[in-house]
Formats: sequence, structure tokens, C-alpha cells
Amino acid sequence: MKRGQRSLERTRRREFLAAIGMATVTACKRPDPSSAAGANMRPYGDRSPYEKSERVLRELTKSPGTGSSRTPLQDLHGIITPSSLHYERHHSGVPAIDPAEHRLLVHGLVSRPLSFSLDDLKQFPSISRIHFLECSGNSVGDQLGNPLPTVQQSHGLLSCSEWTGASLALVLREAGLLPEARWMIAEGADAGRMSRSIPIEKALDDALLVYAQNGEALRPEQGYPLRLLLPGWEGNTSVKWLHRLELAAAPAMSAKETAYYTELMPDGKARQFSFVMDARSVITRPSGGHKLNGPGFHEITGLAWSGNGLVSRVEVSVDGGKNWTDAELQTPVLPRAATRFRYPWRWHGDAAVLQSRCTDETGYLQPTHEEFIAVYGLHSNYHYHAIKSWFVRPSGEVTPV
Amino acid sequence: MKRGQRSLERTRRREFLAAIGMATVTACKRPDPSSAAGANMRPYGDRSPYEKSERVLRELTKSPGTGSSRTPLQDLHGIITPSSLHYERHHSGVPAIDPAEHRLLVHGLVSRPLSFSLDDLKQFPSISRIHFLECSGNSVGDQLGNPLPTVQQSHGLLSCSEWTGASLALVLREAGLLPEARWMIAEGADAGRMSRSIPIEKALDDALLVYAQNGEALRPEQGYPLRLLLPGWEGNTSVKWLHRLELAAAPAMSAKETAYYTELMPDGKARQFSFVMDARSVITRPSGGHKLNGPGFHEITGLAWSGNGLVSRVEVSVDGGKNWTDAELQTPVLPRAATRFRYPWRWHGDAAVLQSRCTDETGYLQPTHEEFIAVYGLHSNYHYHAIKSWFVRPSGEVTPV
Repeated sequence: MKRGQRSLERTRRREFLAAIGMATVTACKRPDPSSAAGANMRPYGDRSPYEKSERVLRELTKSPGTGSSRTPLQDLHGIITPSSLHYERHHSGVPAIDPAEHRLLVHGLVSRPLSFSLDDLKQFPSISRIHFLECSGNSVGDQLGNPLPTVQQSHGLLSCSEWTGASLALVLREAGLLPEARWMIAEGADAGRMSRSIPIEKALDDALLVYAQNGEALRPEQGYPLRLLLPGWEGNTSVKWLHRLELAAAPAMSAKETAYYTELMPDGKARQFSFVMDARSVITRPSGGHKLNGPGFHEITGLAWSGNGLVSRVEVSVDGGKNWTDAELQTPVLPRAATRFRYPWRWHGDAAVLQSRCTDETGYLQPTHEEFIAVYGLHSNYHYHAIKSWFVRPSGEVTPV
Repeated sequence: MKRGQRSLERTRRREFLAAIGMATVTACKRPDPSSAAGANMRPYGDRSPYEKSERVLRELTKSPGTGSSRTPLQDLHGIITPSSLHYERHHSGVPAIDPAEHRLLVHGLVSRPLSFSLDDLKQFPSISRIHFLECSGNSVGDQLGNPLPTVQQSHGLLSCSEWTGASLALVLREAGLLPEARWMIAEGADAGRMSRSIPIEKALDDALLVYAQNGEALRPEQGYPLRLLLPGWEGNTSVKWLHRLELAAAPAMSAKETAYYTELMPDGKARQFSFVMDARSVITRPSGGHKLNGPGFHEITGLAWSGNGLVSRVEVSVDGGKNWTDAELQTPVLPRAATRFRYPWRWHGDAAVLQSRCTDETGYLQPTHEEFIAVYGLHSNYHYHAIKSWFVRPSGEVTPV
């Protein structure tokens, strides 16, 4: 532990010890789980039946499997999202793909079109990195001034995993990428053949062809057996069930980059190819639907992230933005990964408005709602990333503002 | 990406591009998973039915639930072990505990005995860290010269997770730890009431009371709803289903620290309270049971870890230890966490003996089998951590040496 951290921990302990009131021992009769031998081992484990945290599902149309499911951020700890609770956003449901039959075709402006099996791709040098993924439609209700009651509903299109795969740049070079190739059209094997056009610069930078998530094979709803991963970019560009990469001189202008995933700006023009997810943060505990059990010590914790690199600072306010104090960042802070922040708060029982704001390594400061709306207006639909407020009533109940 | 890393990546690419031979596109008929809409979203996901990787179970006696299950290291990627595949070692099975009824009693040499509910413990400041856990009985077959056929069987009592919990030191201070307290006896709520005595220095250092693993609640087989976590120490000291901490002047001399988990040394004396897991490493791919598909590029990858802190270096040999070359370490390297290493190998098709050796930040170099045996003899039973060798036949088949 570094010296600064130790000192911060000491401060937190003093703060905490002064504020907490813990129940002393009282006699009472409890069930005894140790009265008999427990359950046997299992080849593949599962969570306790007492644990009920779930993704909330939202079907967007009557087509089956079209919609989103959101990560229960209010229940999670640390920075890794359990794969079973990673958010989903599907346009034609989750295809069932036999990995032995799956191929990735690389064609177009390459000197040697190639078809790769999963085993071929696993023979490339492997790379593992922890990165967040966020849907660019996250929190659109907040933009419109209709915040949903919980952080899961308003911010749950955000998750973070350790991803493993091959370098896309290496695979493209293997296929003999031609200098005329300026775009890469990535297509999934779902029924809608979801596709996005990616500038070649990103493809040759930090992009991965991912076959593993949190140690094991990619989950079906995250693109099994193969997805593109574009760190820091809007989730839909990390095309799932990836089966085709076409190198081209121009973007495809596919449905998902013209009719969808563009932002209507106040001047009536639409912003297109707005890939990078800006710096933002949100308090996940306490948050909407929680109820504080009384005045005293409460840890304020949440997540911050930036598609532009490292989170360099998170500040917390308990008075609606009048005063700000630095939160502690969980180390290591990783580029384009969720960053857990924590702030020790002694609540005196009065009404309070909790906020967090993030600064990333480019110096970008997360805007207020008003600042965001002044630039983007109300109808951009995507890339909302303003400061989130939670109102704490004297009763301890927490609601969105 | 740091400059050194970029340069290493460039070298690897050259190495790789020179060696790989990839199939070009051929026409063939495949099933089309995109011919219909896919499956619906799910509140709590699961892996693909095509994925079969499992823990191997080993019942040690006829009592139900007594034994171990091992992590399939040969199938895993990165450093995080999926919670469903974390190794298990139980002495009386997995108890079914209702978290609402669970209490942690802190008593003995404290000025204020306390009983904590889970909610009480969650009100302390939370701490998340990535740490490995290893059973001290890992690889005993290798010590005896009877290596099991796969890395899962020989080294699978090793896993790594992001853990979240409260600082044990803070909880003990809250209870008014008395200066006479030199040991802490930690007891689980399993039928055997597994217990270990822990020196107070470790309890006040980096020990955690853990309620979450990889983002969600601790899994039942890792101690749900509460376990002790002693980073870098032998797994059994991180007592699961933790329900009692007794502060004492002397160790309890419980069954698990006298009859078991002591090492018989060559001079006939037994080493007791040998807590720290020494620096070690193992190649997980290629490893026993794998078959290389022919000469050419193959990535050698594996894990290294040290109970004494950071892994500072991993070297790989492909000629049975005559020559050693530095492997690349996956960043960030974290203290007392699994560290993934990778080494690009061009196999010419001859017989080869693959080895890895780890150096940690204390300067400790992982010993050879002979060096280990010279100090510990054959019957220490625990803490074997010597260099592991895999034999690659000209046919590509890989077996333990």
C-alpha cells in the first residue's frame, strides 16, 4: 500500500470510528447451518439461492429479443461485472452459434482474403485487458428530464469485464491490408446482421477480436463465440457474433449508423460517427430505491469511466454541487475501464443532494445537466453523460432528482 | 501502452507473422445461425451450452462434500477466474446459510465483544482487491514424483478473483482489541467448524472480511455470505462461512493446524504456521493433454503468483532449463494476484521441454524440483512450488515430465 493511501485510510478510519454505532452482543436463537454436513462440490458453480439480483429487461418492440437488459449497478462491488449480469442490447435476439462452425471472413481491400476459425484466431498472440462497455443510449431518460427511479434503470447499460482476444491490427496485417482501406465494416451473425463502419485508425490501434470474458469463453449475450471490442467506444460498435470484416474506402452507411446511433443536434443537423464515450460517473450506493437506516456513517460509492483513457479524479458533493471533495479511487486505475470511487460520508439526517463528477486524463470535466443540454439539446438521444443527482430525504429514502 | 510494451509487441508480431500459415478462403456450406431471430434476454445469464469446461472433483473420504475441486487452468484466459470455476476445498461440505440470519461474533481479548450482521459489515468502508487463493496442498503429486496428467489436476487448486469486503483491522479496533491479543482464532460455520489461528500482525495488516467476489455476492463454495481473506496466505487460513473471531494470547492448536496443514521436514520435525505461499508459476498452455497442431508459432502462456507481493519476472525455457528468456507480463501486475505471462514460441517440431520460473519482488527465485526436495524432502505434503516441466513430443502431444 502506498503512503498516500495509508494516510487516506487512517483518515477514513477516524471518520468512521467517530460515527458508527454498532450493536453489542445479545443472546438469541438462530438456525444452525453447521448441524449437518453441507452440500457436495459442483463442476460448475452457481450463486446462492438467497441472491436475487437480476438484470431488468426492456423489450423495445414486439420482435422477440429486441431490447436491452440493464446491470444492477446498485448491488455490485469493485469494478468487474459478473458475466451473468453484464448488460445486453440486442437488435435481433441472441443467436445460437456452434463455435466449431463459426468463421470470420476478412475481405475487401486486402491482398489476401482470409477465413478464420476460432482455433485460428486463438493461435494468434493473446491479449487481456479490463475495459468498460457502455451503450450510447444509456441515461436518455435523464437527458429528457424523466429520470427512472433506480441507477440500474438510468445507468445500467454500463458493464466492465476482463476481455481476452487477438489483436485486430495483427489479423488485418496478416490479410494484407491495402493502403486504400480507410474503413472496416464489421458485421454480426445475428438475424439482423447488425453492422457498423469503423475508421481504420481505431482498427489498427487498440481493437481486439475477443473470444473470452472474465476468464472463460465469451457469454452468448456478449457475442459468443467472437466479438469485436473497441475500447472506449459506444457499445454497438463492438459488434457481437462477429462473422465478417470488410475493408473499404468509405463507410457502409448501414441502418445502425444512419437511422440509429446518430445524434440530432439543436441546429437540426445530426452528428454521425460519434464513437467515443465521454468521461462520466454515477453514485451507485446510496442511489434510487435505497433507504438509509439513520444518521451516521454511510459510504458513498460509485463508478467513473472515460472512453478517452484514465479517470484522473472523481469528486463528490453532498449539497447539490455547492462543495466538492475528492473521492478515493480504487487502484489500479485502468484506461477505458470502470473505476470504483468511494467517499466516507457522515449523514446528519437532513435532506441532501448527492452528486459525483469525473475528470479524465485529457482534462475533460463531466458537465452538469444544464451544460450538457446547452450543447446537445434535448433530442440527441445518445451520449448523455451529465452529472447525476440523488435526493436523500430526512426519512433516509433516496430518489432521483 | 508504454513504449517498452509497444516494442515488445512489435517483436512478437514479426515473430508471429514469420511463422504462421493461415488458411485462405474456401467455399463451403455452413449452418446459418442468422436465419431466424435469436433467443430472448435473460435476467441472469449463463454460458453457451457448447462450453463444457468444468472443475474436476476429488472426494477425499466417504464423508459427503469432503474433498477438492480444481480450476481448469488450461481453458482460462487473463487473470480473473470465473466464480463458477473457482477451486473448492471443503472439509464438511458447503453449508446453506441464510445471510439475514448470519452473524460474525468478535470476542475474547477485546474490550467490547460485538456481533455483526452482514448489513453491519457492509456499512464499514469497502475495499476491493484482486488476489489469488491457493491451497497449500496444490501439486503434492509433483513433489512425490507422480505428476498428474493435466495442469488442472496438478495445479488447479489456484484461482484469482476481485474480492470486496471490510477491513478486518477496522472491525477489530471497533471491538476494542486489547494489547494482550496476539492471535485471532477464525472459525467457520461448516459442520466441522473449520478453524485456524492467525497471528495478530496479519489480521491488522491487509486482511479483509469478504462478502463479494468478482462483483457479486461471494459464492456458496467460497464461503457465502462471509469469509476471511488473508492475501498471499495458504487458502485454508482464509476461513469460509466465517462466524466467529476469538482474540487470544496463544494459538488454538486446532486440528487443522496440528494434524493437518503442517509440513514434515527431512529432520523429522514438522513446520507449523507456514502461512505464506511462495513465488511460483506454471505454463497452462500448452500443457498436459494438449496436442500442438504442427510446427510453427505457438503462444506459451501461464500464470505466476507470489504470496510475498509482486511478481517481478517470469522466464520461459523451451529446452528443459538450459536457456531462459523473459516472458511478457500482463499489466497491471498486482500484489498477491495471479499474473498472466506470455511468450511467443516458434516450434520446429522437435521434442521440447517447456518450463517457466518466477522471481518475486523479494528476489526469491522459484526453485527446481531438486532444489525444493533438498530443503523440504518428499513428505512435507504442502507448499510445493517448484518449476513445472511439460514434455512436447514430435507428434505435438504434451505430457508432464
